[in-house]
Amino acid sequence: MFHYVEENLTPEELAHERDLYTPLTDSVRQLVDATIRTEVDDAEIHAVRREVDALVARLRAKQIPSSFGARIADDGTVRTHGNAVIGMRNPIAIPLDLQTDEDSRVWADFHAGAAYEGPPGLVHGGVSALLLDQVLGTAAAAAGSPGMTGTLSMRYRRGTPLGDLHIEAKLDRTEGIKSYVKGHIADADGVTVEAEGVFILPRWARELIAAEKAHAPKQFE
Amino acid sequence: MFHYVEENLTPEELAHERDLYTPLTDSVRQLVDATIRTEVDDAEIHAVRREVDALVARLRAKQIPSSFGARIADDGTVRTHGNAVIGMRNPIAIPLDLQTDEDSRVWADFHAGAAYEGPPGLVHGGVSALLLDQVLGTAAAAAGSPGMTGTLSMRYRRGTPLGDLHIEAKLDRTEGIKSYVKGHIADADGVTVEAEGVFILPRWARELIAAEKAHAPKQFE
Repeated sequence: MFHYVEENLTPEELAHERDLYTPLTDSVRQLVDATIRTEVDDAEIHAVRREVDALVARLRAKQIPSSFGARIADDGTVRTHGNAVIGMRNPIAIPLDLQTDEDSRVWADFHAGAAYEGPPGLVHGGVSALLLDQVLGTAAAAAGSPGMTGTLSMRYRRGTPLGDLHIEAKLDRTEGIKSYVKGHIADADGVTVEAEGVFILPRWARELIAAEKAHAPKQFE
Repeated sequence: MFHYVEENLTPEELAHERDLYTPLTDSVRQLVDATIRTEVDDAEIHAVRREVDALVARLRAKQIPSSFGARIADDGTVRTHGNAVIGMRNPIAIPLDLQTDEDSRVWADFHAGAAYEGPPGLVHGGVSALLLDQVLGTAAAAAGSPGMTGTLSMRYRRGTPLGDLHIEAKLDRTEGIKSYVKGHIADADGVTVEAEGVFILPRWARELIAAEKAHAPKQFE
């Protein structure tokens, strides 16, 4: 179930992948937004749908049989391009361009558009949870204590408006195999959602790291 | 900010909207999946991207200026077609076809595909939170105690495999304006994630309901 594929890709090959797939993903992301917001007439909706179906068939002419999974390069870089929050090839990903400070604080400025709506004009509370889970998990990994989510708790202080937002998280402390992480989402007026998470390194990952130190993934996304 | 647009749509017009937009949304959802999984060659990726851009331009020829928001019909039906979990016009929505039992238990069987991945082969922990937030909130509303998310806590018992899954939630109790709801996600082998949420009816909604009983939205999504 936890299948990490090992691939030996050069930096040039990794850069080529980025140049190839990022524009397509961005374009499909625009199509998602336009699908929600369009007011063109019925005939045009039907015509566009037929064109989309044709493009799906072209992309599916050759495809991996299941999900993207995780692929590990020889230098330990983990490519999780299908990841629902940060996957380079996933149009659902908002996306978050995560930065890591010297003190292992992980953060991103990002824009939440029409596809992430819950209450009118506001980010869906579950979308905030989705983003916080990823950023808290990445913060645990950035501090050297990677793990999978054990518990995650959000406190919604007020509605988070769609638009330009900020998210950040930082490891608070570790206890054995548990990493305690805190984070939040904020708009220009301050914090809107606070989160606390406990991340746990599962046995299979501990065994993997013990057995193959050189190939241990740097983080679990 | 909390703008509910009132529209007088007949049942026939609502059905027409469903027939018009559901196929397009489904097709774009397929395109999202294919974008993650495709292995066609570089030239074809570039060619498909150009075609997607052209379709975006056609849909954007006439569009609403911001997010979809919420539109309320005269019978109280709330249309939140842009909703990130259940929006009929949102290709990001998984989607959940929520059912409500006589005892106000809300549930859905659904399929999580490649776009919802976190760890390899598993549903992203944040996606589970996204879905549970929506279903717990809908369960609060179904029991006559709608609200916006105040707090939400998840306990991840084990990884949730991509594939066929079940989600459900039910109101546990109310205390004043607070609704306490419990729910979970399960696969064929049992529960994978448990959730508890507190949903609070905000002041603006209480005032809206008091002022315009007839137009009060049945739920806040």
